[in-house]
Amino acid sequence: MTASPGGVWAAALTPLNSDLSPDLAAMIGHQTWLLGPGGCDGVAVLGTTGEANSFSLAERRRIIDAVAASDVPPEKVLIGTGCCALPDSVELTRAALDAGAAGVLMLPPFYYKAVSDEGLFRAYAQVIEAVAAPDLKVYVYDFPQMTGLAIGVDLLVRLAEAFPGVIVGVKNSSGDWPAMAETAERLPGFGLFAGTERYLLAALRAGGAGCISATANVTGALAAGVFAAWHGPEADRLQDELTGVRTLLEGFPAIPALKQIMADHTGRDGWLHLRPPLVNLSAEQVAALRQAMADAAFQPAPVPVTAG
Amino acid sequence: MTASPGGVWAAALTPLNSDLSPDLAAMIGHQTWLLGPGGCDGVAVLGTTGEANSFSLAERRRIIDAVAASDVPPEKVLIGTGCCALPDSVELTRAALDAGAAGVLMLPPFYYKAVSDEGLFRAYAQVIEAVAAPDLKVYVYDFPQMTGLAIGVDLLVRLAEAFPGVIVGVKNSSGDWPAMAETAERLPGFGLFAGTERYLLAALRAGGAGCISATANVTGALAAGVFAAWHGPEADRLQDELTGVRTLLEGFPAIPALKQIMADHTGRDGWLHLRPPLVNLSAEQVAALRQAMADAAFQPAPVPVTAG
Repeated sequence: MTASPGGVWAAALTPLNSDLSPDLAAMIGHQTWLLGPGGCDGVAVLGTTGEANSFSLAERRRIIDAVAASDVPPEKVLIGTGCCALPDSVELTRAALDAGAAGVLMLPPFYYKAVSDEGLFRAYAQVIEAVAAPDLKVYVYDFPQMTGLAIGVDLLVRLAEAFPGVIVGVKNSSGDWPAMAETAERLPGFGLFAGTERYLLAALRAGGAGCISATANVTGALAAGVFAAWHGPEADRLQDELTGVRTLLEGFPAIPALKQIMADHTGRDGWLHLRPPLVNLSAEQVAALRQAMADAAFQPAPVPVTAG
Repeated sequence: MTASPGGVWAAALTPLNSDLSPDLAAMIGHQTWLLGPGGCDGVAVLGTTGEANSFSLAERRRIIDAVAASDVPPEKVLIGTGCCALPDSVELTRAALDAGAAGVLMLPPFYYKAVSDEGLFRAYAQVIEAVAAPDLKVYVYDFPQMTGLAIGVDLLVRLAEAFPGVIVGVKNSSGDWPAMAETAERLPGFGLFAGTERYLLAALRAGGAGCISATANVTGALAAGVFAAWHGPEADRLQDELTGVRTLLEGFPAIPALKQIMADHTGRDGWLHLRPPLVNLSAEQVAALRQAMADAAFQPAPVPVTAG
């Protein structure tokens, strides 16, 4: 695995076939587009947005294999590997290493609630010790709205100190900016990724790495503008524009809305497939989303016809 | 699969080996004890208390196979089969059917939050339709404190009406007695199990089936007394006694405390193994638990030396 990445990363959507199996060709096409016109510096595969937890272990292995076999540069790929069952996390983390990915994005085991920091620490430690690979790079994935667990900065510091060079960063999807700022302050050089492009500029100014975001599937080009200009005089204006689009998108259920936008944008209805418990937007929501995007004059970057 | 079971069911603990793999022989021994001196009418295998979500699919298959190959009567077994990934739920449900279990206890896919009733309905429907077995008996497993999802009575009624004879009951672990009472009222004959023996008598009087409880691993004999006497004049007094013990136990993290009690009770230290993120009680908690049990003069039923 390679040195810490940074910039604008998309938590990549996973296109599905009509039988709800992963559409691997369309997935690679989407990742390729994200890394080109889509404006992203990297892709996080098998994250929340990619419906990772709705796939079986075998399906996730096939997704990792497909990425590894593709022309997507592995140094631009993080792979989500955190499962409820630690043996599954170990297996997926090994697969991500074999694929040459830049690192893994690891949820804590998320079924049991009200667990202790000690229990969460041991969960990460067991996976890292079982994988036993010196080149492993783990980004802790902190998303309390989905896991029901808060990974506080104290636990993050403990993990980073216990596994230097292995626990190298965090995707903080809590929306809690003070926690992100504290992370950057207490862990200089740590790979702090905000889980929303809303805090892209703030994260960069605090010394963080960038953002890994669901909505970067469609806002990547705008976010890339912020990243390119963040030292310059236009940074705040560009961030405000980006934040405006993010705010617009937050009015809708994230994954169904992003798949709807990609369906509209590419003309491919296959984009609308979702695994339960996710469902498509209602007709009213689709109309409101299209209207809001039109009002904001917002569209994702063009998709080449050959991108799948 | 057989007709609706009832009475006192334990969400059975899963003993582990020192490498944290399931100790299958000890597990069968524990289930056998629960169904004998332990006072239980049945065992729910691979529930929350059994640390099901900490096991890989392959480990869960081995657990189901071990139960099927044992002398534990299959009509006294429910098997937890609800996973985040629907293909896993389908595979485990088929395995439970093959094992001849009385039914399956099915969590909704629990990673994504703020999902719609429609999405949860489709999740159950997809598993049932994929398994496509007329003798399938599904008990919906509603445990919002772990899943972050509330399965309201409206959704339960919709499921029961859409899949008559298949969606046959619910384990309501919410602690929300009014919801349980409403379930019993709107779904006469439905297999309503309270998720705690605290509401055993109330559930029976409301027309419910009984309870499926974590703490029944140790309180089963007491709870059996309530079940045996529930039409009689001693019912309230026995329930009060049972509720007192339940209240005592609720002062400690459930699974670590129950494994501690079984370790103390059997002299087998192997009972103390837990998979992260769960951790053992602290020394202070162990002392407090033992003292509270001594003060209440509470002990589980005797364990024969041969029970494993």
